[in-house]
This record gives sequence, C-alpha cells and structure tokens, in this order.
Amino acid sequence: MQASIRIGSSAAVQYLLRIGDTALIQAQRLGEWSGHAPALEEDIALSNMALDLVGQARAVLTRAGALDGAGHDEDQLAFLREERDYRNVTLVELPRGDFAVTSLRNTMMATFFKLLWERLRESTDAELAAIAGKAVKEARYHQQHAADWVVRLGDGTEESRRRMERALQDLWPYVTELFAADAVDREAAAPGLGPAWSELEPAWREEIDAILAEASLAAPVATPFLSTGKQGVHSEHLGYVLAEMQHLQRAYPGGAW
Amino acid sequence: MQASIRIGSSAAVQYLLRIGDTALIQAQRLGEWSGHAPALEEDIALSNMALDLVGQARAVLTRAGALDGAGHDEDQLAFLREERDYRNVTLVELPRGDFAVTSLRNTMMATFFKLLWERLRESTDAELAAIAGKAVKEARYHQQHAADWVVRLGDGTEESRRRMERALQDLWPYVTELFAADAVDREAAAPGLGPAWSELEPAWREEIDAILAEASLAAPVATPFLSTGKQGVHSEHLGYVLAEMQHLQRAYPGGAW
Repeated sequence: MQASIRIGSSAAVQYLLRIGDTALIQAQRLGEWSGHAPALEEDIALSNMALDLVGQARAVLTRAGALDGAGHDEDQLAFLREERDYRNVTLVELPRGDFAVTSLRNTMMATFFKLLWERLRESTDAELAAIAGKAVKEARYHQQHAADWVVRLGDGTEESRRRMERALQDLWPYVTELFAADAVDREAAAPGLGPAWSELEPAWREEIDAILAEASLAAPVATPFLSTGKQGVHSEHLGYVLAEMQHLQRAYPGGAW
Repeated sequence: MQASIRIGSSAAVQYLLRIGDTALIQAQRLGEWSGHAPALEEDIALSNMALDLVGQARAVLTRAGALDGAGHDEDQLAFLREERDYRNVTLVELPRGDFAVTSLRNTMMATFFKLLWERLRESTDAELAAIAGKAVKEARYHQQHAADWVVRLGDGTEESRRRMERALQDLWPYVTELFAADAVDREAAAPGLGPAWSELEPAWREEIDAILAEASLAAPVATPFLSTGKQGVHSEHLGYVLAEMQHLQRAYPGGAW
C-alpha cells in the first residue's frame, strides 16, 4: 500500500487545489453516467464534459505541484492524497443523483467555472492564465448544454418539474460554500493569482436566476448551512469517490493495473 | 417497462449490426475504466477511445435502422433490443479484466476496426463509406495507443509480462470468431457493402504478430473453439452489460432519468 503524500499549505497552492480538486471530483460524478445516460448522444456529451474537467484538473494540479516545489506530479496529487487534503467544494462530491440533480449541478458548476476561468485569464501566473484561456471555452459549452436540460426539465412534464424542484432543494444549501470568503481566498487574490471566489457571486447569481426563470423555477431561500469541503472537511460521500478512484494506484504504486 | 424491438434479418442490416454492436460493447468495456485508470492521462485516453467507439456505433446503428426501414433510431436499437438480437463478437463482451487484458483486447479490436474501416471507405453504401472515412483515423490512433501498452507491458517487468501472457491465453480463443465466414459475410460482400470479415484475417494476423514480437510475446496456438456472438448467441457476460446500459431507458421509456 502506497503511503499518502501531503502538500504545502501556502495560499497559492491551496487556491489551486480548490480549483483542481473541484474539477476532478465533478468529473468523477459526470463520468459515472458513462454507459448509463438515457441516449447515446447524451452519453457522449456527459463523457466529453467529464474529460474536459479531468484535463483542467490535470493542468491545475500539475501547476499546484510545481508551485509547491516538493516534486509531486498531478497523478501523485490526484491519487495519493488523503481525503482531508482534498480541497474541492462539498457540492461536487454529493452523489450523482438522478438526471435532474446532474443537470442542475452541472449548470451551477459550469457557470461558476466559466466566471472563474474568465477572470483567471488575467492571472499574474502565466501558466494558470494559459490554462484558463482554453478552459473557459469548455466551461461555456458545459453551461449551455447543462442549462438547456434544466430548462427542458423544469419546464417539462409534471414529473420532471417535481424532480428539478427537489434537486434545487437538495443542492442549493451547498452553494453558499462556493462564495464564502476566507483567508486563502484573500491571500490568493492579493498578488493577482486569481479572484476571491466571493467576488464571483453577483454574476453567478444573475446568470443562474435567468436560467431558473426560463425553466419556470426559482432559487430557494438561503439557509445558514455552510459546507466545508474547501477546508478539507468533507461529507461522508467523498471517501467512497476517492476509494474507487485511488484503489489501483495505491494497491500497485506507479503500476498500470 | 418498455417493450423490446426487433430488427430485420437482411444480410445488410445484420452486417451493420455486427459492426455497430461490436463498437458499442467495446466502448462499454473501455468506459468502465473512467475514473479508475492508473493515471489521469490514461483515464483521458481510454475515455476518449470509448467516446470514439460510441460515436461510430451511433452512426452505424443509425444507418442500420434506416436500411431496415422500420423507423427505429440508434437509441432504440442500442437500448431496446434483447440480448439475442445483439450481433457483437463475443470477444468484446468479456469482462474488462486488468490493464493487460484491456490493452491487448483494445489492440486486437483497433487493428481489426482499422482494417475494416479502410475497406469500408470503398463501400457501395455512400453513408457507410463516409462513416468509415472518419472512423479509420480514430482506429489508427487507438491501435497505436493500445499497442504501445502491449509492448510496454509484454517487454516490462516479470509481473507485467506474466499478466500479458495470461491475457493472450484468455483472449486468443475468441479471435477465431472475428474472421469466421458465414452467409451474412458473403451476402454483404457480394453487392459491395463491405468486405467479408474473413478477408481481413491475413493482414490482421501480420500486424498483430509484429506487435507481439516487439513485446517479446507470441500468439498462442489456435484452438477449435468458436464463439458465436455474431449469431446472437452470447457469453454469460453480455446480459450484465446490457442490464446496466439499458436500465434507465427501459424503466423510463424515452425519458431522461
């Protein structure tokens, strides 16, 4: 069994881990639809989006490893960290749910990533800016594709609408974490590595409200609940995701089984 | 529960189902690695190849539905046929196995598909010829990628070599079916729809032998065993693949759950 690795706690590295880990875990949840989507075309679309996200995660984790300077590559960061060292937001680790949950979460996250990548194109870190330049195009497509489903389902049959409303109730409490300001957020923003995520909230909310309105849905009232994935304190679901994802690499270090 | 559909038994339709179904089931097996591959880069590569195969399957099944003339689209063909109406070769329905099995089978099938698509570019069916023109490039890449792994593993550590040898012993008996001539094969070849698969064997064997030689491996001796997936008589494994793949569509006909 391969030993775990740790990674430095500088704000820059933590900021990048939040991005890379969130993309990676969201990719895992989208990838779970591979071979199970309701139509071949949608199977292809979901798998393609998962692939884009894995590619983004890989690039950002590579950069995090380089800034950390301890010689860890993206595979070591993806496969050999413990759960508490994952910095993804809790929203993406929730189970994939039905197609309403998947479409709504995908819309929420793609909108978030689109706004984030747009800003990261101006990062003072040239490599991160280059990653963002490619990723923003992918996120735009993800947002369009997922939002189309939210509108179709929200404005669809009684059953599809009921499911979208339940998805909104289930997912909405986890949105707060996306924009909660903290020290990492402030310290990464100061030298221009990237925006404080808290700055993205007004634009995100405006775009999401417009999509929900088109779907004849409305955002639930905010609750005081604040999830804590960005601090490494995760829901009970992440452990299972990591167990599946890391099993091979940990059982056969560096191996290909 | 959605009722099953049948499809006509003309040689042309059967010939296309053999291609489409083989690509589709191979895609399912490659897709099972999504989120489980030993490195992020390989995860992306395997998922990309699965996506190419789903795309090929989708195009060929659409064409099969059109030639059949009963108004079935590619999703109905993929999701609503019974196991005995699937026409994939048995080789692709065997469990994904370890990375040696996956790499070897991928090499065998990509080499087969490359040779098949090369010939299908000359099909008298213009749509099939167009599909082949795109697919042949994808198959070439799949072959190179998979063969690289066969060489790396066959010519690697003692453990990786042992696993490749076991994979060869397990998979080789199923190769016979790929090239076994029958009436469908002959009747589809006569009007120029595509080559009899039996014609592809010499070139396939030459390319595979070259790859195995580079991996310091050798093909096992042929056995009299002949699998019968192309006739719709499948191993015990296909039912599980279809159950997973068809579950959603059958439970919620035309729906998106």
